[in-house]
Amino acid sequence: MGPGPSDVPPRILNAMARPTLGHLDPLFIGLMDETKKLLQYAFQTQNPLTMPVSAPGSAGMEACFVNLIEPGDKVLVCINGVFGNRMVENVERCGGKAIVIKDEWGTQTDLNKVEDALKAQPDIKILAFVHAETSTGVRNEAKTLCELAAKHDCLTIVDAVTSLGGIELKVDEWGIDAVYSGSQKCLSCVPGISPVSFSERAVKVIQNRSTKVQSWFLDMNLIVGYWGAGNKRAYHHTAPVNSMYAMYESLLMLKEEGLENAWQRHQTGHNELAKGLASLGLSLAVDENYRLPQLNVVRIPKGVDDGEIRQRLLSEFNLEIGAGLGDFAGKVWRIGLMGYACKPRNIDHCIAALKKVLN
Amino acid sequence: MGPGPSDVPPRILNAMARPTLGHLDPLFIGLMDETKKLLQYAFQTQNPLTMPVSAPGSAGMEACFVNLIEPGDKVLVCINGVFGNRMVENVERCGGKAIVIKDEWGTQTDLNKVEDALKAQPDIKILAFVHAETSTGVRNEAKTLCELAAKHDCLTIVDAVTSLGGIELKVDEWGIDAVYSGSQKCLSCVPGISPVSFSERAVKVIQNRSTKVQSWFLDMNLIVGYWGAGNKRAYHHTAPVNSMYAMYESLLMLKEEGLENAWQRHQTGHNELAKGLASLGLSLAVDENYRLPQLNVVRIPKGVDDGEIRQRLLSEFNLEIGAGLGDFAGKVWRIGLMGYACKPRNIDHCIAALKKVLN
Repeated sequence: MGPGPSDVPPRILNAMARPTLGHLDPLFIGLMDETKKLLQYAFQTQNPLTMPVSAPGSAGMEACFVNLIEPGDKVLVCINGVFGNRMVENVERCGGKAIVIKDEWGTQTDLNKVEDALKAQPDIKILAFVHAETSTGVRNEAKTLCELAAKHDCLTIVDAVTSLGGIELKVDEWGIDAVYSGSQKCLSCVPGISPVSFSERAVKVIQNRSTKVQSWFLDMNLIVGYWGAGNKRAYHHTAPVNSMYAMYESLLMLKEEGLENAWQRHQTGHNELAKGLASLGLSLAVDENYRLPQLNVVRIPKGVDDGEIRQRLLSEFNLEIGAGLGDFAGKVWRIGLMGYACKPRNIDHCIAALKKVLN
Repeated sequence: MGPGPSDVPPRILNAMARPTLGHLDPLFIGLMDETKKLLQYAFQTQNPLTMPVSAPGSAGMEACFVNLIEPGDKVLVCINGVFGNRMVENVERCGGKAIVIKDEWGTQTDLNKVEDALKAQPDIKILAFVHAETSTGVRNEAKTLCELAAKHDCLTIVDAVTSLGGIELKVDEWGIDAVYSGSQKCLSCVPGISPVSFSERAVKVIQNRSTKVQSWFLDMNLIVGYWGAGNKRAYHHTAPVNSMYAMYESLLMLKEEGLENAWQRHQTGHNELAKGLASLGLSLAVDENYRLPQLNVVRIPKGVDDGEIRQRLLSEFNLEIGAGLGDFAGKVWRIGLMGYACKPRNIDHCIAALKKVLN
């Protein structure tokens, strides 16, 4: 019950252990096609360029930035946690100019500041923000941020690592241009795969670059030949075949459950957990109006030893919860209710274990 | 029996299916430490910076190039197949200047040309070449090439994707500065992981760069904090935990067999296959003196339909062999004898199946 990787259900682990097909085998290509369709459902998009990058979420993030940014491009980055900072790193390493809006850890990105910045600098090309900040448990207003970007003719890059499958995310309806996620959060797949999707507008930008994408491995102009439509696939790299079995299985499970049902399950689980935490006198650090159900940031009570408690939960109760990062280090715990891990027996176990170690 | 991914033994597939630990769990960190040691054995190196990159071989290649090259650096690249070309792409995307030595597909890199180039341009910083060219079945003279580089005070980047575990490779003894491989060839692990190793000299170059590494995901200055020594690990990205179980298991199997025994097994398998091919009147495209035992490039006889034969082998005999790439497309087949796939029953099956479809 940490901030991810989340528990992986046996069905997905079993899928992993199937014999490794050749990565250009017709059966595997069929699985790639089905995976793309299922991902379109999960992202709520019709974008043809929707696929899993063969590497962790950090590489999915990098794929979005290196493909859309050319040297000198201005990118407005919203920071209210760890992953906004990482976006700035990406912008700068692409030769872009990052304009930064900072908000306090545990609060949302201020929409007024974003609008002011977009008005003041009409040459901003991209607005980048994190939908669900795993380091703080905050949900940013993705829909409204995308509307602001559209109003000022900006592209959007959205970090949906922790949001996909856990809370409402509608790529097409909200007008997101580039989005990346991770396999190991609310999809409860094994870590190592990063689903991404690019709008047709973003694809045009990528196709009309005046410079080459700086990463060969992440160049969408090349990858599209491997993951593209039809039976003719151009060899680019060797896909992590067994991890793709797991990805497919996890997306199939999401489809079977239904996206809205999955969102609701996370919300219900959160409500139960919050009730339990309150009964122990523990409080959540994030306002109810923009709190993530799948990532619960709990204030560590005064006088309680952070490391000792987490160590005891792990060794005595086989229960992992997450430490605070950055500004939140030593001040909070992060309890994940992601995907398969979000179920009543886990919530009961967590509350019972916390009760024992805190007394 | 294609050019990889090779067959994965049940023991490794079973390892994949174990429950996913947190990527900062003490048990997983223990596994990371053991994996590093086993990799040092496989690479025959004491390099402390030896670890598996959390992405396919193409990303391991990119990791070597983006970390060592700064804009303007001259890199001498030897091309005698597909993967040399990919190196040039990498050099150029890093802002480096690629100086290219080309040799015919199916032949070795000409050592005289390399020496002449190194003499003529003393400001060349790096010599980059492919040890085992998967596209042509040729072994390049890695040891001698490294000696030439050392003589001219050059760093070396060596592609060992197909050589690691299949033929002699001695990173320290040969003085290789940066080497990358893939999990899915002679290690018979699932695809998706790229073992790399950097010499202390290379590490100094990386630490003293005047520009940031252009990839955040592949920046060794950051990754070393995650894979570094000691119990304190800095979060960088989420490792593909289950694929790392597989990586560990495959390296353990190599250690159990013994590196020299594994090399010998590949050579013996190749000798058997070559005998069988000859009995069918089929010939190998590469000279015996620099032929790879693990990747056999077979000339397609006149009048034989390449695609039809491969399709029949797959559908009637459940046997995959590889098509020719680039200059070799339509002219050769590539029969892999990699890792677990290199065993008598496979060789017999392959020869028997070829006999049936060719008659």
